[in-house]
Amino acid sequence: MKVVYVVPGLMDKEEAVRRENMLKEWAFPGTEVDIATVEEGPASIESMYEEYLSIPATASLIFDLEKKGYDAAILGCAGDPGLDAMRELTDNMVVVGPGQTSMLYAAMLGHRFSIITIEDSMIASSYELAYKAGVLDKLASVVSVNIPVLDLRVDRERSLEKIIKAGERAVKEDRADVLVLGCMSMGFLDVAKEIEKAVKVPVVNPSLVGLKAAEAIVGSGLMHSKTAFSTPPKIKSKRVRGLEDLYIRRK
Amino acid sequence: MKVVYVVPGLMDKEEAVRRENMLKEWAFPGTEVDIATVEEGPASIESMYEEYLSIPATASLIFDLEKKGYDAAILGCAGDPGLDAMRELTDNMVVVGPGQTSMLYAAMLGHRFSIITIEDSMIASSYELAYKAGVLDKLASVVSVNIPVLDLRVDRERSLEKIIKAGERAVKEDRADVLVLGCMSMGFLDVAKEIEKAVKVPVVNPSLVGLKAAEAIVGSGLMHSKTAFSTPPKIKSKRVRGLEDLYIRRK
Amino acid sequence: MKVVYVVPGLMDKEEAVRRENMLKEWAFPGTEVDIATVEEGPASIESMYEEYLSIPATASLIFDLEKKGYDAAILGCAGDPGLDAMRELTDNMVVVGPGQTSMLYAAMLGHRFSIITIEDSMIASSYELAYKAGVLDKLASVVSVNIPVLDLRVDRERSLEKIIKAGERAVKEDRADVLVLGCMSMGFLDVAKEIEKAVKVPVVNPSLVGLKAAEAIVGSGLMHSKTAFSTPPKIKSKRVRGLEDLYIRRK
Amino acid sequence: MKVVYVVPGLMDKEEAVRRENMLKEWAFPGTEVDIATVEEGPASIESMYEEYLSIPATASLIFDLEKKGYDAAILGCAGDPGLDAMRELTDNMVVVGPGQTSMLYAAMLGHRFSIITIEDSMIASSYELAYKAGVLDKLASVVSVNIPVLDLRVDRERSLEKIIKAGERAVKEDRADVLVLGCMSMGFLDVAKEIEKAVKVPVVNPSLVGLKAAEAIVGSGLMHSKTAFSTPPKIKSKRVRGLEDLYIRRK
Amino acid sequence: MKVVYVVPGLMDKEEAVRRENMLKEWAFPGTEVDIATVEEGPASIESMYEEYLSIPATASLIFDLEKKGYDAAILGCAGDPGLDAMRELTDNMVVVGPGQTSMLYAAMLGHRFSIITIEDSMIASSYELAYKAGVLDKLASVVSVNIPVLDLRVDRERSLEKIIKAGERAVKEDRADVLVLGCMSMGFLDVAKEIEKAVKVPVVNPSLVGLKAAEAIVGSGLMHSKTAFSTPPKIKSKRVRGLEDLYIRRK
Amino acid sequence: MKVVYVVPGLMDKEEAVRRENMLKEWAFPGTEVDIATVEEGPASIESMYEEYLSIPATASLIFDLEKKGYDAAILGCAGDPGLDAMRELTDNMVVVGPGQTSMLYAAMLGHRFSIITIEDSMIASSYELAYKAGVLDKLASVVSVNIPVLDLRVDRERSLEKIIKAGERAVKEDRADVLVLGCMSMGFLDVAKEIEKAVKVPVVNPSLVGLKAAEAIVGSGLMHSKTAFSTPPKIKSKRVRGLEDLYIRRK
Repeated sequence: MKVVYVVPGLMDKEEAVRRENMLKEWAFPGTEVDIATVEEGPASIESMYEEYLSIPATASLIFDLEKKGYDAAILGCAGDPGLDAMRELTDNMVVVGPGQTSMLYAAMLGHRFSIITIEDSMIASSYELAYKAGVLDKLASVVSVNIPVLDLRVDRERSLEKIIKAGERAVKEDRADVLVLGCMSMGFLDVAKEIEKAVKVPVVNPSLVGLKAAEAIVGSGLMHSKTAFSTPPKIKSKRVRGLEDLYIRRK
Repeated sequence: MKVVYVVPGLMDKEEAVRRENMLKEWAFPGTEVDIATVEEGPASIESMYEEYLSIPATASLIFDLEKKGYDAAILGCAGDPGLDAMRELTDNMVVVGPGQTSMLYAAMLGHRFSIITIEDSMIASSYELAYKAGVLDKLASVVSVNIPVLDLRVDRERSLEKIIKAGERAVKEDRADVLVLGCMSMGFLDVAKEIEKAVKVPVVNPSLVGLKAAEAIVGSGLMHSKTAFSTPPKIKSKRVRGLEDLYIRRK
Repeated sequence: MKVVYVVPGLMDKEEAVRRENMLKEWAFPGTEVDIATVEEGPASIESMYEEYLSIPATASLIFDLEKKGYDAAILGCAGDPGLDAMRELTDNMVVVGPGQTSMLYAAMLGHRFSIITIEDSMIASSYELAYKAGVLDKLASVVSVNIPVLDLRVDRERSLEKIIKAGERAVKEDRADVLVLGCMSMGFLDVAKEIEKAVKVPVVNPSLVGLKAAEAIVGSGLMHSKTAFSTPPKIKSKRVRGLEDLYIRRK
Repeated sequence: MKVVYVVPGLMDKEEAVRRENMLKEWAFPGTEVDIATVEEGPASIESMYEEYLSIPATASLIFDLEKKGYDAAILGCAGDPGLDAMRELTDNMVVVGPGQTSMLYAAMLGHRFSIITIEDSMIASSYELAYKAGVLDKLASVVSVNIPVLDLRVDRERSLEKIIKAGERAVKEDRADVLVLGCMSMGFLDVAKEIEKAVKVPVVNPSLVGLKAAEAIVGSGLMHSKTAFSTPPKIKSKRVRGLEDLYIRRK
Repeated sequence: MKVVYVVPGLMDKEEAVRRENMLKEWAFPGTEVDIATVEEGPASIESMYEEYLSIPATASLIFDLEKKGYDAAILGCAGDPGLDAMRELTDNMVVVGPGQTSMLYAAMLGHRFSIITIEDSMIASSYELAYKAGVLDKLASVVSVNIPVLDLRVDRERSLEKIIKAGERAVKEDRADVLVLGCMSMGFLDVAKEIEKAVKVPVVNPSLVGLKAAEAIVGSGLMHSKTAFSTPPKIKSKRVRGLEDLYIRRK
Repeated sequence: MKVVYVVPGLMDKEEAVRRENMLKEWAFPGTEVDIATVEEGPASIESMYEEYLSIPATASLIFDLEKKGYDAAILGCAGDPGLDAMRELTDNMVVVGPGQTSMLYAAMLGHRFSIITIEDSMIASSYELAYKAGVLDKLASVVSVNIPVLDLRVDRERSLEKIIKAGERAVKEDRADVLVLGCMSMGFLDVAKEIEKAVKVPVVNPSLVGLKAAEAIVGSGLMHSKTAFSTPPKIKSKRVRGLEDLYIRRK
């Protein structure tokens, strides 16, 4: 099976390679994982504006990747930016949203989960994501550490400490029994096990679970529903020749 | 009060002028209305992909319009594409989403409303919009006429007939007592009164109600909550010089 | 457009005139506003019992006011007492409930709102009102200041201070990003701007927003749904000659 | 134990005696049941307007009945008009709402229940009643027979037939497994057993279950919560001398 | 009417007799109450595992008790273990679940109730029980005293004190206005009145209310819905000779 | 990784081997799958009574299997009988419920899913399962084919035809865009692909997805939450020596 992890924002080469290596290590035998990055986009996603900014280039990349024979693409942001649009564009390649996926795995493991997010500015959209995932009833709370995404790795220990504190608060005050890391950069910080040790509840890492869910879906012979995410009407009806014709620039 | 209606997709000049004139006619005395259109975008919005495509250029336009002293901007699509992002970008100019607004007005007028949408492909996102608006409990159903947006005006009578049929079905089968037109092009077709006459329940026209709500919000001295829609962290913390720095192109 | 504000309880002349003047000042050019008061009723409404007591005389007044050519009537209590009944009685005059309306405006402006109410005794009915409005999902909390309605104006500063404290608690503890004043007397205290300044979130004044919504609904050519609020069957079927025949006194 | 059944509208003596006799027959040994009727009110309740009209005189009667030593009062209308207000007024006498009570008994007996109501005009308020009762999740549907209350007894067989048809529709189309008669006059028509025989699901008679619930609550030593239904503040704080001072007539 | 209280776990003779006497004292005149205990089962139920362990022997006992002419059986555990299964097995004998029943009575008496449960391990299942009862919307919280069931009676005063503290917390922090004792052993401790005195809200005792509800249901001529709880298909279709054939042991 | 599939009812050797072979074939390289069957239990599970009957022996088997070093156990019934109890009993071996898991996968793939179940008698419990899984909001409907479990394989073509019809009804009438097979015997009938072809929406096979989810959870280093499913208090506190002491037989 061939899986591609798609980074929806600009990322330095070194970090991309580091992530690719982690993914390769996590993969089941028989799964090939590649990483693909857009050529333009936001530096990180910590507002709705940046989330939307990232979508056109990423969707276009996803559209091209299907032709390369991938079985699944994992969207590289836990906010699942544009997931529905990307699913509209592919016919045979599953597109996996790690945010939605992590919440559904959290729902498998306990009664109530909390999401640990980056900044207060992402709390409301995390609730919306839980609604879209269908598991709002199990969402205990969304707690934020208020560290800019790009600073997460600068001081790993301090980030870890803040995440643990947020997690403890969620377990104690909001009665969470599972935690979800609400950011891919948190996921690739590879801190889930340390948090589990400190907080004593399962911690879902979206970077890892996104991959495992992709493997599970493909391994089950499943595809996202084209009835739910239908091909854009103009393409379906052949009114336009291709994807690029859906966006017009006034001369 | 100065209000601007922002078209998030490409539109021919003539239609833009026609809409501007309708808006001017609808406005309360004392309200100035202008229309502004993006220079690039989708021809119409009838998929999630096109919805996302429309956002970056529209957000940028909204950002500029605030500086021109407008009190309110009305997003010119009933799917409210990127409404949360646009609200993140303005500090004093209210941004009104006609989709959300129309549903809330429908909730004011009855117990259960149905949305009449363009294509089946927009049904799921209409439910999500109702959730985001907060009135999912009052949404009786979403019914579709399956006419491409750009064909709506081609045969006004046939469009009207299909809309009436969908409305009757919603009232009879889904127990709706108010109808909402789920598309701005339907709104500017100016058919609400004819549908009301046929179906005997109030019909909310998003084009008209969007304007009236903008006037009401500004007239109440209100602004959307900056706690709910906070300025992107990188801008707030002055990490970047301006909006344009949030999007990076690899050289 | 002609709008009438209907006071559902006894009110001294001076206060009625003061309110009428505020409403006239708030109105859009082209809107005439009058105030009408019942001849009998409770001194103020701070229990369900008083809420119900106020309804028969107010409904009867509303019924008469429609004949005077008003386009809209605003019910002068944020609990919207008897709103559904009053809508049953009118055919062309919109009846606006400022409680419901304010909540729907709050929903337009943010993700979660809290209502600041007068007494603990009105908390449960505020939740029911939010359910009837259809926006229970966005209601963060109802907080009470425990000041009798008739004392609100006695010490404006102390009232303001208590309202601000309640608002701050709602924002901090209940994650509200918009506040709604849950009482018309609070509304006519004209404190919304001062609270906004202190608490930094939009504050919806039901007295002002009730008027603006009435103007917006009439300006949109809309009417509340007669399918939702149907004429009492005995009147519709002409079993009785008029409204007064619906209430019988045993001789 | 002493229980009083309170008719909130005008009723001819003969029918009142007939109902009293049925109640006496249904009562457990040891329960005394009386009937009390208001001196003024609507002829029947089939609109929200009539529901509200009935409340002031009934509340006043309930207030007086507590002093006569009754342990419980049953409100004689399945719409539970003014139940919350009446509970505000009594300190030791339980006030039972047969609408709410019947829904809760239906919830005890199956997974999903439907309410059979009198007229389409009462459908929306039946949903609200289910919300107030707390069992909206189990409400399968509200179906109406569209027979005026006062005509129900005129042709018992035709009424029965229409009720059975509505019940069958609810079971078949809405997946109901319990039915609730949504009107006291339907209850005293004494048709529940015949409907059960025809439709094969339990049928809750509000007239009977209202009495049984009153006996069960009193027999359990319980009282409605005064924290939930608190005494009107003006009475509690002794600002007024008595109930009658809460309603003022301008001279 | 004949009612039987069924203890689903092992219980010493003395305690069984004590409970039987309390039930006989609580019963309405005309109600005979017996107690029946299983011959094997858990010592007490404070985990889901023990809850399931108790079901087969209890279901078998319930099945036999119907043949003895009882009108109703009360399941002797507030977790209602296997209630749906037991209802599948009886045709004319109502099976009452005191957990579900107590919540529905709590819903009759106030706006929001909290359940006081034995151990943290039973909190999640209490929420599920409220969902099954249909009144999740009125459940304010589940609070636990963390006393093993079998220790409850060892130090009655200490137990009472802990229960009162938990109740006060629920009223103050979770806005409960009614309390439900979530355990039959708590119920037979006969502390409800003392808690009411301390906490000032109604306290529903499942042991007492279970009996009263059984009497009320039988007294109303009602039975749980066989459409909702249908006879196991193998029995209905006579594929097996009897209940015992549904369980097979490999030789 | 070692995974065991646990059959909670009696099953003939041949069918057990057939299923084991299918599971081995489905497994990722590196996953060992065994099948284990109880020595006593129901012949099939198609009522709540049989569901509960199956639990004690299965729980005991699960408890023993953990000691044999399995990483995960898959409960072999799509009703997930006793899943919570089994999770209480294991400390390091994940227990996977294929019912819950299939619904969560369905939620990953579309907006609304329907469950195709065996008999009408299992419809209500399917809704409860969706509630427990946390995805009730996405459940479009539960439709039944009314074929006894043991007859499913007797006439594969007729079963397939009925399942397809039920699926088409769910897609057309209930707006489902994903289908879930609600029974393990349906799953091992291996018809998912044929249904997909006919109905054109993804069909989730619980037998296959249960395995893939087990692999994904173990592969992510996750375990169900012991805070959510805590060890029975009597065992935790060492009041009893072992599992078998939780069940007592009167001598």
